[in-house]
Amino acid sequence: MRPDILIVGVGLIGGSIGLALKGSSAVNRIAGVDKDQAMLEKALELGAIDHAVTLTAGAENADIIILCTPVNTFPGIIDEIKDILKPGTILTDTASTKKQVMEWFTRLQETIHTIGGHPMAGGEALGVINADKYLFENAVYVLTPSAGTPAEATDKLTDILSILGAKILIMEAGDHDEITAAISHIPHIVASALVDLTQGDSDKLALAAGGFRDTTRIASSDPALWQQILFSNKKPIIDGLNQIIENLVNYRDMLEGDHHEQLYRQLKRAQEIRNQIPHMRKGLLPGFVDVICIVADEPGIIGKLGNILGAKQINIVDLEILHVRDGDGGTIRIGVPSFEKACMAVEALKEYAIKAWVR
Amino acid sequence: MRPDILIVGVGLIGGSIGLALKGSSAVNRIAGVDKDQAMLEKALELGAIDHAVTLTAGAENADIIILCTPVNTFPGIIDEIKDILKPGTILTDTASTKKQVMEWFTRLQETIHTIGGHPMAGGEALGVINADKYLFENAVYVLTPSAGTPAEATDKLTDILSILGAKILIMEAGDHDEITAAISHIPHIVASALVDLTQGDSDKLALAAGGFRDTTRIASSDPALWQQILFSNKKPIIDGLNQIIENLVNYRDMLEGDHHEQLYRQLKRAQEIRNQIPHMRKGLLPGFVDVICIVADEPGIIGKLGNILGAKQINIVDLEILHVRDGDGGTIRIGVPSFEKACMAVEALKEYAIKAWVR
Repeated sequence: MRPDILIVGVGLIGGSIGLALKGSSAVNRIAGVDKDQAMLEKALELGAIDHAVTLTAGAENADIIILCTPVNTFPGIIDEIKDILKPGTILTDTASTKKQVMEWFTRLQETIHTIGGHPMAGGEALGVINADKYLFENAVYVLTPSAGTPAEATDKLTDILSILGAKILIMEAGDHDEITAAISHIPHIVASALVDLTQGDSDKLALAAGGFRDTTRIASSDPALWQQILFSNKKPIIDGLNQIIENLVNYRDMLEGDHHEQLYRQLKRAQEIRNQIPHMRKGLLPGFVDVICIVADEPGIIGKLGNILGAKQINIVDLEILHVRDGDGGTIRIGVPSFEKACMAVEALKEYAIKAWVR
Repeated sequence: MRPDILIVGVGLIGGSIGLALKGSSAVNRIAGVDKDQAMLEKALELGAIDHAVTLTAGAENADIIILCTPVNTFPGIIDEIKDILKPGTILTDTASTKKQVMEWFTRLQETIHTIGGHPMAGGEALGVINADKYLFENAVYVLTPSAGTPAEATDKLTDILSILGAKILIMEAGDHDEITAAISHIPHIVASALVDLTQGDSDKLALAAGGFRDTTRIASSDPALWQQILFSNKKPIIDGLNQIIENLVNYRDMLEGDHHEQLYRQLKRAQEIRNQIPHMRKGLLPGFVDVICIVADEPGIIGKLGNILGAKQINIVDLEILHVRDGDGGTIRIGVPSFEKACMAVEALKEYAIKAWVR
C-alpha cells in the first residue's frame, strides 16, 4: 500500500521533499502543515503538497511524518501528536543534529517507528519559493533509526527517500553528531572566529579574496539557524572546540619555539588527510578526477570550457575557480567522472590551446 | 630608457612574470638565473626569458631585479650581489611576507632602490612548465617601498608590473604582514588544525563535502613552502593565533554557559563582516553582483549557463557551485559585473526555465 505522507513545515526543505515525492507512484497523497498560512498556500500553489491540513488531522492519517520545522519546535509537535498516531506510523525529521531528537522521540509510544534523518544539503535562500525537487539529488541523507525500530520500517523510509535521488547512509545518532561536529559545526564556529579576527577592518577585507573567502564562506549563513544548530549539538562541539584550541596552541608553540621540522610534519599530515577527501568520497558518491586548466580573462570562457568538454561527452561534475583573479578565468579546476575522461578533457582543451593537466 | 630586467628564479612565479613582460615595448631584455639548469633551459625554450645568465653577471647589468626564489634564499643572494649593483638599480621580490625581507634589504647600499613586492596570486602546480602570462592578471600586487626609496623608483616599478595586468597597491611592510597573517596565514593554520580534528577518520572524511572542503582547501598546499611562509611572518601570526584561540575559548564558553543570545550576536556580527567582503572589494577590483540559479543534474549544464549568458554579452566573472551535490549542477552562484547585468542574466536564464534570482 502506498503511504500517505505528512510534511510538517513546508519551507525550503519540506517543500523540496514534497516536490521530489510528487508524482512518484511510490507515494499516495502528500499532506502539508505550516504555521505560516502564506507559506502553506504557496506550497499548495507550487504543487509541493496535495492538500493543506492541521497538525493533528494530518498526523492521525499519515503513514510517514517528516518534521521539517526548526529543531526547537520538535518537543511541542511531539507532545501534540504523540497520542493520536496510528500504530506503525513512521516518524522522521530533517534536523542537522540527531541525538537530542532521538531522545525526544522516546516520548512516543513503542508502536511508532522513529527514525532520525539528516539530509546533508540545504539552500542559501529559504522558503518554499526556493524549494527545488533536485535539492537532495546526490546529497548524503543520514538516517538514525531508534533501537526499537524494525528494519522493515527503515527500509520503507529508505525506499521513499531514495526518490529524492539522495544517498541514504544509516548510522548511530551519536556517531552522526560527532562527525557533523567535526566536519560542519566546528568549521562553522572557526569560520566565524576567523572573520572576527579581521574586526571588519576595511584594508583586511579588501585583500580578503581567494583562500579567505573560501575558508569563511560558511560564516555567511543565517545566525539564528546556526545558534540553534550549535546548541542542539553542544557536547560534541565543546569537545571538538577544546581539541582544536589545543591543536592551535600546538601550532603557536611550534612557531614560538622555532620547531621548523615539527611544523613541516604537521602541515604535511594535514595535507595528506585533506587530499583523501575526494578519494574517500568515491565509495559514497560518484568520484571524480580533477583537471586543472589555465584560461585567459575573456568573456564566456566558462561556457567555452563547458562546450569543449560537452562536445566530447565529458560531463563536468565539479568546477572551481582557483585563482585570485576577478576576470572570467584564471586557473580553473574541473572535476570529471574518471581518469580516462580527465585525459580526454586535457586533449580536448589542448586542441583549443588551453593549457591543462590532470591533477 | 627601457630597463633591463633580471629574474632570479624562473619557476612558476618568475616564469610567469617573464612571459607577461616579454614582448612589451616598456622593457628591454629579460635575463634569467636559476640554480636548476633544467628549469633555466626550459624558461629559455618557453620564451619566459631572453637569455640565461649567472647571478653576478645578471645583477651587474640589470636595471630591475626581481627575486622569485624561496624567501630563505634571499640573504645569500643579497650578500652575493650587494657590492656589484649599479646605483639606481631597483631591487624587488615576490615573497609573501615583507617585514623580514625589508630588513634584509637594508644590507644594500642606499643607492639601490629596494621595494618589497607580493603578487597575491599563485598556482597549484609549480615550475616554469606551469608558468602563465595571465597568472597575475587582475590579481592584487602589493608593493612596500623602503623609507629611502624615491617615489620615481616606485612609480617606475609600478609601471612595469602593471604590464602583468595586476592591481598595484602600496602599503607599509608591517601593515602588509599583519593583514596577510589575518587573511592568509592564520586561515591556513586553522584549516590544517580543522583537518587534524578528523584524525583521518574515514567516516568523517566520507561525509566531509561542501563546507568542510571549502574551509580546508588551503590545507592542501605545499607544506614545505608554507612552513617557510609561516616562519617568515612569525610575530604577527603568533599574535593572531593567540587572538583566535581567545575567540574560540569565548565561543566554547558561550555554549557551555548556555548564552544563547550572546552566541547569536557573535554569529550575526561575523556574518555581517563576512558579507562585506565582496562589497569591500569593489574599490580595489572590479565588483560583481551574484546571481543564484538552480539547475538539474544534467551533462553540460555549466557550458549551457555560459552560453545563455554569453549570448547576451554577460560576462561571468565568478562562479561557484554552492551545493553538496556531485552532479554537474545543483545551486550555482554566478558573479556578473553589475546589478543591471544580473537582472539581464535572471531574465535570460528564465527563458530557458532555469530558476534564478539576484542575491
